Amino acid sequence: MAAAGEPPDQPGDAITASERKAAGLPRREFLRSGLGAAGAAVLGPGIDPAAAAESQPNLPPNVPEWTRNLGDGVASRPYGVPSRFENGVIRRTVSWLTPTDTTAVSFAPLQDLYGVVTPSGLAFERYHAGAPTIDPAAHRLMIHGLVERPRLLTVADVMRFPSVTRTAFIECAANGSTEWRGAQMPGLQFTHGMLSCSEWTGVALSTLLNEVGVKAGAEWILAEGADAAAMSRSVPLAKALDDALVVYAQNGERLRPEQGYPLRLLLPGWEGNINVKWLRRLKLGDQPWNGREETDRYTDLMPDGLARQFTWVMEAKSVITFPCPEKPLAAPGSYEVSGLAWSGNGKISRVDVSFDGGNNWRSASLQAPVQSKCLTRFRIDWHWPGTGALLQSRAIDETGYVQPTITQLRAVRGVNSIYHNNAIQTWRVSPSGQVENVQLA
Amino acid sequence: MAAAGEPPDQPGDAITASERKAAGLPRREFLRSGLGAAGAAVLGPGIDPAAAAESQPNLPPNVPEWTRNLGDGVASRPYGVPSRFENGVIRRTVSWLTPTDTTAVSFAPLQDLYGVVTPSGLAFERYHAGAPTIDPAAHRLMIHGLVERPRLLTVADVMRFPSVTRTAFIECAANGSTEWRGAQMPGLQFTHGMLSCSEWTGVALSTLLNEVGVKAGAEWILAEGADAAAMSRSVPLAKALDDALVVYAQNGERLRPEQGYPLRLLLPGWEGNINVKWLRRLKLGDQPWNGREETDRYTDLMPDGLARQFTWVMEAKSVITFPCPEKPLAAPGSYEVSGLAWSGNGKISRVDVSFDGGNNWRSASLQAPVQSKCLTRFRIDWHWPGTGALLQSRAIDETGYVQPTITQLRAVRGVNSIYHNNAIQTWRVSPSGQVENVQLA
Repeated sequence: MAAAGEPPDQPGDAITASERKAAGLPRREFLRSGLGAAGAAVLGPGIDPAAAAESQPNLPPNVPEWTRNLGDGVASRPYGVPSRFENGVIRRTVSWLTPTDTTAVSFAPLQDLYGVVTPSGLAFERYHAGAPTIDPAAHRLMIHGLVERPRLLTVADVMRFPSVTRTAFIECAANGSTEWRGAQMPGLQFTHGMLSCSEWTGVALSTLLNEVGVKAGAEWILAEGADAAAMSRSVPLAKALDDALVVYAQNGERLRPEQGYPLRLLLPGWEGNINVKWLRRLKLGDQPWNGREETDRYTDLMPDGLARQFTWVMEAKSVITFPCPEKPLAAPGSYEVSGLAWSGNGKISRVDVSFDGGNNWRSASLQAPVQSKCLTRFRIDWHWPGTGALLQSRAIDETGYVQPTITQLRAVRGVNSIYHNNAIQTWRVSPSGQVENVQLA
Repeated sequence: MAAAGEPPDQPGDAITASERKAAGLPRREFLRSGLGAAGAAVLGPGIDPAAAAESQPNLPPNVPEWTRNLGDGVASRPYGVPSRFENGVIRRTVSWLTPTDTTAVSFAPLQDLYGVVTPSGLAFERYHAGAPTIDPAAHRLMIHGLVERPRLLTVADVMRFPSVTRTAFIECAANGSTEWRGAQMPGLQFTHGMLSCSEWTGVALSTLLNEVGVKAGAEWILAEGADAAAMSRSVPLAKALDDALVVYAQNGERLRPEQGYPLRLLLPGWEGNINVKWLRRLKLGDQPWNGREETDRYTDLMPDGLARQFTWVMEAKSVITFPCPEKPLAAPGSYEVSGLAWSGNGKISRVDVSFDGGNNWRSASLQAPVQSKCLTRFRIDWHWPGTGALLQSRAIDETGYVQPTITQLRAVRGVNSIYHNNAIQTWRVSPSGQVENVQLA
């Protein structure tokens, strides 16, 4: 079966030095592949691959250790974990950002993620009183207030209703909060990492409301968590009847503890905080409750001194995930620039990318299927000539909304806001290939 | 804010006994919800909820332990894991099925999964010499043989090419192998658990082939792994140029070790074995190599004594995942019956479900988006009267192919086959609600 000019081979043969030579891989091929010194690692420390191929045809076959020895058995990992070579791909925290470890946040490593699904182990976390460990057999969901038939449901009761699966992003309203007054965070994980996207399975909240019977006059629902903060928010009935879910599964398995196990409210496209975790209570009423999380927090103080309230929808936004401060460019040449775009108002219809700070734009390709209220991966080819560059992405959603610049956003909202910064992100690429978080004047 | 007739409340209030009473949850509500004795657990052992609500208005509020104490802090889980209450949801092995722990298989717990994405930690495993732990910095992918420009690529080289993301199932050709000669496995995890579905990201193999330049006469590619088995298969060039990928990411993060870290071949819709893990070599040739894994194994011995070879495509198949032997029915009543359908030839166009062993069929709803060569979740409502029943599902794909019965399959292929059993699965529900794996005459 060997091609002309090559030694015969059999499946399972090692890539030998002589075979490498026969395959036409002399020293210049290593250099062309950009391997340089790293290429030597194939043969082992101190062995020059070209010299080995050309002058040492009897060199022992290059068989790495993992091909010479049996690997791990199946019983070793009933529940799998990433390779130890990926142990730097973790959620990270910022100690000065929040008062304690239990009233805190962790950021997803967007710079190391691919596609649109966020692995559940890396989905961002936000707690107000820590992540509780709840016994699902003892947990209850109470639905009461302005309803015909109040119910106290077990988790098994909830899981017996007809189910729905959908993919949706969740973004903390405070994602990018540090950037309102200037570029402050050093990298992508901290400018945009309070963002995750998962496949969720649960029951439509409309199904549960149909079960209890909504009384006339009901317009709002208090959703309350079973954590020690008893985190609660007021949800308008219209959203509850539209696309809200009470979810129990994420990315194919039951919710993770830090994501609300055993039950979580999911309001697709709305700010993270209102997707109440560890859901224990839904109370229907005729007015919002105006609790702490929708008055003291999660409001937007405007330049005139008044605050916007109930700004739930996460408007269209995007960010380039490669290159980024954590993933610089190695050398001039051709690259695929990639990133994520999302909108709480529906599907992403277009993402434009600029390499000169917004003077010229090209449209990126969007990874199919583009789903509503879901992360969308975009990609665009770029030849980097090795000069300075200003990279930006701009999302447009199906409503026609165009992601604004930080200048446009400040012109309307001032600089007192904490939440809802969906401005275009600028990465400055230096001639050395380093990437920096900057804001243009 | 309180509704008429209820005590005032504030967000964060516990669900007290008096509130429960005010919400209209006397004893009959507990019974109606099917909670019975379990409902008492809300208040603690030995406390009757109705009695508490009606006769002990001053009972301390029912605040569970996890609402009274701070939960875990963010620093406690840089990479998250499931709740300890889910520690029974694991991959499982069958000791008698394979000779050693490193030449073995583990099965995914389909009975505990939701939606269509399989969590990477639960994706089925199949090794021929164990799962190697590969240093990605030392790993190389060699592309040679009938090509213009042979290459030895680092993982970083591979990741620099334009990328593609798609969701696809992988099913071992031997999934259901034990059932060819009768119903042998006791549950869903072992009848169908060599099946997973993931979001994959990598580079199109056509892109890599374009880089090396395919020489005239090349028709086949030898794909070889870096494991100690040097697992290899012959891949026709047409498939390589169609939708084959060399993937490095799964479900948003880098491949898991047992799934081929750092590089894996993905041939959407084709039997698991040919999706070579730990990919180290692609050699182009003019004929197949006829290695062990495509002659001694992964062929189908037919009744006439001849063997089918190169039966790569996994034809349309489906299975009901609830109820199943591991998830029996608790009591007569309304249920959502749910399952998975897939086809290596494209999209699933319809799934029919029978409750009487195939005499009558109803079409199930399909979860959107239905994607090609991907698991599709189907659902159908069923009122179980508490009698015996024979549950079946039947997948039809976009080519018009209809999933066969085991009788139809045996009529063509006999009973010597190990691989490619895509027969309709029958679950027998007994009047007690237990579910059993059976085959109909």
